[in-house]
Amino acid sequence: MPFFHVQETPYKKKRKGVQIKSFSGEHIQMTFILLDSGFVSRHSHSEEQIGYVLSGEVEIVIGKEKMEYARGDGYYIPAETPHSFRVLLGQPVELIEIFSPPKEENRI
Amino acid sequence: MPFFHVQETPYKKKRKGVQIKSFSGEHIQMTFILLDSGFVSRHSHSEEQIGYVLSGEVEIVIGKEKMEYARGDGYYIPAETPHSFRVLLGQPVELIEIFSPPKEENRI
Repeated sequence: MPFFHVQETPYKKKRKGVQIKSFSGEHIQMTFILLDSGFVSRHSHSEEQIGYVLSGEVEIVIGKEKMEYARGDGYYIPAETPHSFRVLLGQPVELIEIFSPPKEENRI
Repeated sequence: MPFFHVQETPYKKKRKGVQIKSFSGEHIQMTFILLDSGFVSRHSHSEEQIGYVLSGEVEIVIGKEKMEYARGDGYYIPAETPHSFRVLLGQPVELIEIFSPPKEENRI
């Protein structure tokens, strides 16, 4: 920092089906996430989250709302709101996600 | 929100050479910025900022560091740090920028 080369930074495995690379400031963290085909998750956390689909297609559920999303769509997840992602089309999905405050577990 | 369609949301003029569309949460704001050819600026603000180049090429100065940036590069600007952008190649630059806290002036 202040400059980081996202493309040259390799993804690291966070858990099965999820790879990330993450760049953290004081109050914000920009995380790039690669979800494998078929990945499903539902969870919530205290960090606020806002995201943008870079590639692929994904079904996102936030609270009780569901949307099928593709490149160029965005979403906002308030703190403590349950949410999930399901990869569509059998190909990986790449997302930019921002967390505030930074998620400690993403500092890998 | 929670879902926002970035592509279908038109850019709005913020000032000469700068168009934005912005989506705000409580602590984070995702702003898409389109800088016209030749745009130059140098300023600072109290909001922390992290960004990603979606298209075009741009020279970014953060504090005393300078970098020529293109699609897929990222940068971090701590609060109160002077920074500027200069569009290269004579074509517009599109950025995703995150501010924390949200910039009030971007809520347009």
